[in-house]
Amino acid sequence: MQANSSSGTAQVHINLAERSYPIVIGASLLGQPATYRDLPAASTALIVSNSTVAPLYAAQLQAALQSHYKTVLLVTLPDGEAHKDWPTLQLIFDALLKNGCDRKTVLFALGGGVVGDMTGFAAASYMRGVPFVQVPTTLLAQVDSSVGGKTAINHPLGKNMIGAFYQPQQVVCDLDVLKTLPARELSAGLAEVIKYGPIADMAFLDWIETNLNALLAREPAALAHAIRRSCEIKASVVGQDERESGLRAILNFGHTFGHAIEAGLGYGAWLHGEGVGCGMVMAAHLSQRLGLVDAAFVQRLSTLIQRAGLPVVGARLSPTDNAGRYLELMRVDKKAEAGEIRFVVIDGPGRAAVRSAPDALVREVIDSCCD
Amino acid sequence: MQANSSSGTAQVHINLAERSYPIVIGASLLGQPATYRDLPAASTALIVSNSTVAPLYAAQLQAALQSHYKTVLLVTLPDGEAHKDWPTLQLIFDALLKNGCDRKTVLFALGGGVVGDMTGFAAASYMRGVPFVQVPTTLLAQVDSSVGGKTAINHPLGKNMIGAFYQPQQVVCDLDVLKTLPARELSAGLAEVIKYGPIADMAFLDWIETNLNALLAREPAALAHAIRRSCEIKASVVGQDERESGLRAILNFGHTFGHAIEAGLGYGAWLHGEGVGCGMVMAAHLSQRLGLVDAAFVQRLSTLIQRAGLPVVGARLSPTDNAGRYLELMRVDKKAEAGEIRFVVIDGPGRAAVRSAPDALVREVIDSCCD
Repeated sequence: MQANSSSGTAQVHINLAERSYPIVIGASLLGQPATYRDLPAASTALIVSNSTVAPLYAAQLQAALQSHYKTVLLVTLPDGEAHKDWPTLQLIFDALLKNGCDRKTVLFALGGGVVGDMTGFAAASYMRGVPFVQVPTTLLAQVDSSVGGKTAINHPLGKNMIGAFYQPQQVVCDLDVLKTLPARELSAGLAEVIKYGPIADMAFLDWIETNLNALLAREPAALAHAIRRSCEIKASVVGQDERESGLRAILNFGHTFGHAIEAGLGYGAWLHGEGVGCGMVMAAHLSQRLGLVDAAFVQRLSTLIQRAGLPVVGARLSPTDNAGRYLELMRVDKKAEAGEIRFVVIDGPGRAAVRSAPDALVREVIDSCCD
Repeated sequence: MQANSSSGTAQVHINLAERSYPIVIGASLLGQPATYRDLPAASTALIVSNSTVAPLYAAQLQAALQSHYKTVLLVTLPDGEAHKDWPTLQLIFDALLKNGCDRKTVLFALGGGVVGDMTGFAAASYMRGVPFVQVPTTLLAQVDSSVGGKTAINHPLGKNMIGAFYQPQQVVCDLDVLKTLPARELSAGLAEVIKYGPIADMAFLDWIETNLNALLAREPAALAHAIRRSCEIKASVVGQDERESGLRAILNFGHTFGHAIEAGLGYGAWLHGEGVGCGMVMAAHLSQRLGLVDAAFVQRLSTLIQRAGLPVVGARLSPTDNAGRYLELMRVDKKAEAGEIRFVVIDGPGRAAVRSAPDALVREVIDSCCD
């Protein structure tokens, strides 16, 4: 990967052989025709957005795309994780087929992680694969879900259970869209930014600690650096393990505990980033109990996560056997193997590892981290 | 690719780098544990079959797999193209999730093309990809749909519109299962066998002409050769163009006209192979009108297709503007580009090409080929 910063726009290049693509990061990108000039030629583009984001940005994107495509269509999905399902995905396929869209049609995902996941899976599956572009409008989607090619919808029995690994042609991270992001969602995005420190780059963790106030104040230069460095680290990991057979699992630091909280409370009660924030605190405690990091490291991480506006105390998921409920939920996680939970732990500052842990130890961690 | 014939079993190796896999062809393979010994280790296997095939062969396969997997599950889908849809696909996901199947679970497709397509797409999508094995039980599936990694389901507005390119770990072509195949389906399979002659190998066309009676009598040696050579040719083409960006399109010889007949009459009225058989006659006529082959070649192909028990006269799709209806249906075909129909034509015996043709010429072909 590489970065350049001519004209205030940074670029991170994701190296995946014939599936390589650029992430462009900068102000006022979304509405500029030039942003899209290197995309493959096609007669039709379909913008997929949701009922919250479309009124804010769809017209701008549509106008910019009209200089490249004869027809620019828009499909607006209902907003929220609850709609990341097959009936909503069908709305995209219906729009494609009703408009006679062929294999060259380019899909544009304009929204957060849910829109990105659904548009990506629709692109992966429509006629067995059409090109797509991510235009993420949340910090979380910019630093995480738009990088790495994971796409999916939920099944009534599990989150992200049906999907594909499918890479976009380009990711456009426009800093301007973060101005309209609710504070709670900004914090949720920062959880994934913070994550890259303990698992891969302690200097970046230092930088985040120093610049957290600027990030919370949405200063463009700080946001641009945080997004770029997050994408670089993720790109480096994904480039070594596109299909998550090993190394890539370290990106799930905080996610095993976090997913249990999200699922246990019912999706939507906590934002994904909130679950990850608190989950990192719990995973750090587990790392400490495994003798991999010291108490000062756990405290440092916990303080930063709290400063970012994220929860650091685990939610209670059962009035009777709280730890048992966590374990039960973590055992059905997609990353579990034959019922054995795989934890991402910090194996010394700046380095992550994946391992199992005795139930008794995990119970101690949960008991000490929850109300 | 390569073939060996020790112990009466032939093997065709599909070379697709890390997605390479073997096709094994022989008698009594399905029920032998040894057939599956090279598959990746896992605790659970799920057999997907349909209500017609499961009573005949599921118990045999289940018994053979029990020496490799702790748990062998079976899900039986309703039979037929009408069920190649999302609600039926959900039955597979439901079975996987209810049984806590993880990412290593191996899916086995036991049935014809519909079961293969659905199981393949389920395998491609479940947790973003789990391994699967094809055990095709029709000649058509053995020579065509189990090779090449195309998987899909239908959308109310179009056939095979939602799917993935996804390769199996292994394909098991058991000759014994062809004994219970209805005669009409045997003929439908022969359409795809015959196809490989005009597009790629005139010596194979000679061989089919000589051995057609043996094939219709289901003589194992003749069937084994036909399957092996068909798979070799398809493997060679797919190996050069896995994602159908160019060359692979020649495998659709006969399919553009054939799909129009299938869609125009309503799916199920004609078998897919019947549409392809008649479609090849129509595409040969088009090739002749384009000056690419002579009348003798068209007559030779038409005679062979008829001898195989396949229709050679096009179905009438409209009482008023029959050719117009064909054109309309062919324009919404997945392979059309910006509304322009792409025909696979014979560009001299043993060589295919993809090209467009003037509507007027296509109308003449349709008028001369239909009742």
